Amino acid sequence: MSDNKCILVTGGAGYIGSHTVVELVNAGYDPVVIDNCANAVRASENGRPGSIKRIEKIVDKKIIYYDIDLLNKAALDDLFAKHSFIAVIHFAGLKAVGESIEIPIEYYKVNICGTLNLIECMKKYQVSNLVFSSSATVYGTPQYLPIDENHTVGSCTNPYGKSKYFIEEILRDVGKAEKDWNIILLRYFNPVGSHKSGLIGEDPQGTPNNLMPYVAQVAIGRRSQLSIFGGDYDTPDGTGVRDYIHVVDLALGHIAALKKVSTKCGLKVYNLGTGKGYSVLDMVRGMEKASGKKIPYKIVDRRDGDVGSCYAEVTLAQTELGWKSDRNLEEMCEDLWRWQTKNPKGFQTDNSS
Amino acid sequence: MSDNKCILVTGGAGYIGSHTVVELVNAGYDPVVIDNCANAVRASENGRPGSIKRIEKIVDKKIIYYDIDLLNKAALDDLFAKHSFIAVIHFAGLKAVGESIEIPIEYYKVNICGTLNLIECMKKYQVSNLVFSSSATVYGTPQYLPIDENHTVGSCTNPYGKSKYFIEEILRDVGKAEKDWNIILLRYFNPVGSHKSGLIGEDPQGTPNNLMPYVAQVAIGRRSQLSIFGGDYDTPDGTGVRDYIHVVDLALGHIAALKKVSTKCGLKVYNLGTGKGYSVLDMVRGMEKASGKKIPYKIVDRRDGDVGSCYAEVTLAQTELGWKSDRNLEEMCEDLWRWQTKNPKGFQTDNSS
Repeated sequence: MSDNKCILVTGGAGYIGSHTVVELVNAGYDPVVIDNCANAVRASENGRPGSIKRIEKIVDKKIIYYDIDLLNKAALDDLFAKHSFIAVIHFAGLKAVGESIEIPIEYYKVNICGTLNLIECMKKYQVSNLVFSSSATVYGTPQYLPIDENHTVGSCTNPYGKSKYFIEEILRDVGKAEKDWNIILLRYFNPVGSHKSGLIGEDPQGTPNNLMPYVAQVAIGRRSQLSIFGGDYDTPDGTGVRDYIHVVDLALGHIAALKKVSTKCGLKVYNLGTGKGYSVLDMVRGMEKASGKKIPYKIVDRRDGDVGSCYAEVTLAQTELGWKSDRNLEEMCEDLWRWQTKNPKGFQTDNSS
Repeated sequence: MSDNKCILVTGGAGYIGSHTVVELVNAGYDPVVIDNCANAVRASENGRPGSIKRIEKIVDKKIIYYDIDLLNKAALDDLFAKHSFIAVIHFAGLKAVGESIEIPIEYYKVNICGTLNLIECMKKYQVSNLVFSSSATVYGTPQYLPIDENHTVGSCTNPYGKSKYFIEEILRDVGKAEKDWNIILLRYFNPVGSHKSGLIGEDPQGTPNNLMPYVAQVAIGRRSQLSIFGGDYDTPDGTGVRDYIHVVDLALGHIAALKKVSTKCGLKVYNLGTGKGYSVLDMVRGMEKASGKKIPYKIVDRRDGDVGSCYAEVTLAQTELGWKSDRNLEEMCEDLWRWQTKNPKGFQTDNSS
């Protein structure tokens, strides 16, 4: 068993998942990916998502992939019977804040009941190491900055954020009841950028929910103008300040967490951010520089629920995981731009040449 | 459709559920009960729980009953296809605080995913009126007394209480997304007592988790002594003070809530309590009087998580539901004692004569 390196990656065909799968292979792990591509149009051959084929190109290795919905308990049980996992990295879930307000039942069902099915299988098959994709959204409105892991949680107001908070609480209770489990809750700040190869990246369907994919689509001419929500925040330039983190740094944070759970750490919580705040206009300028294009924007009203500034205290992850972010704003923008220009239609772009 | 009086009652074979089914029939409704009797040993003939047969004796009417687990979505869907419900009263769930700490996955699965299955079916079959069994436990440690419905919620620490809180939050989000839904969250204080007939009552399996069934078992000689957890609280006699409410009053609160949801009330929250606090020793003396037996007790250490006093502000239910509790401590004790003496083995007692 000591040379078993088999890791289950739920949602491993998604944006953060796919980058993590690459780093898992780089670190000598054997990832098994499940994904039902609920968040993406399938750009696939033989039922394999486009991102998986691209990962295989990057790592020059076949990736084990199954089209499994976490709500399909029987399929999940079969998977656990077939593979002997040493740990699970759990990315799968619905993730659009606005949509979660429209269809809360689906969000709670997929995110919470999907997670419960997963941990039921883990318990049955004695897989006791789990790394969970949580989010800085669990902090709600920051009471102080930078936000550390002891900041109060649970005041978020949309079903997406609440589902992350509820899962955190459920996992805390599981950690108390199952003494041999090791669980790391990773609270992501704002992942941006793409793998250096330009082969994988964020591929939002329809109008992007997040700033940077939208900015990139304006830069490439797919959208005419960026709307910036709020120009009168108490920030250096009045626009909202966030902690953007390069997705490859974020992926490497998962490798560090995976090493940590193997040391029998119990339940731990870590912010994954850079600790630096950049404004919307900082990011726009970064993308203008990376792309060489002018990015038209207009300042519009603030959005309900948005805050002026949010960025992470990152010393805990540095101390306990030995991990910190390395990639700066320039690299985030350059890598995003490379992905955008090589794949104007995302994974549907024919890149087989 | 105007004469449709068909109400789905989940968990309708349980303690509060069975008393509510009686009052539903009394009020002219047609209850359809589902229950998988997860909280009870089945004392049943032909797969029908003992409590259902007893309800039929009380109301002199056949009760429609199905053995359905809320986690069995297909069975639930069939049920909704077969019956045309005007509203749902949702009692079903796991309910033992201590057990919830031991097996949190089961508690979250049954309580949350069961509820999500139910509301998915309600949405599919356009049943938009729901009365949900919540609990005063969602308030956590009281910040002031009496506790009103605006008291902060969510600080409870055990999976049972958290599952109630999470379901409340989920239902709030569903209420926002589904504009035509009417949802009432009923926060129960401490239900005790039994139906006047002595035919139905609380039938705990194993050691009772709640005070009064334990006290009744001491009175009848099934247990030798009561342990009172904490005699040094800041209360008149040092023992914990709670808001005990007669289960028939509680049941009638559900009839009032059912009338309210039919007025298109949106989402509402009501405490169901008496507004009066009684100490453990008050209750012991009440049972001594009702039973004519001496109830031996000893004071032991406080239990983790217990508070000194907790009782409800009840004016909101009085004003908006036109409901208030009528039955006093004496009646609670007398009715409990009647149930206990007529059914020393609960529903397993042969009472067919």
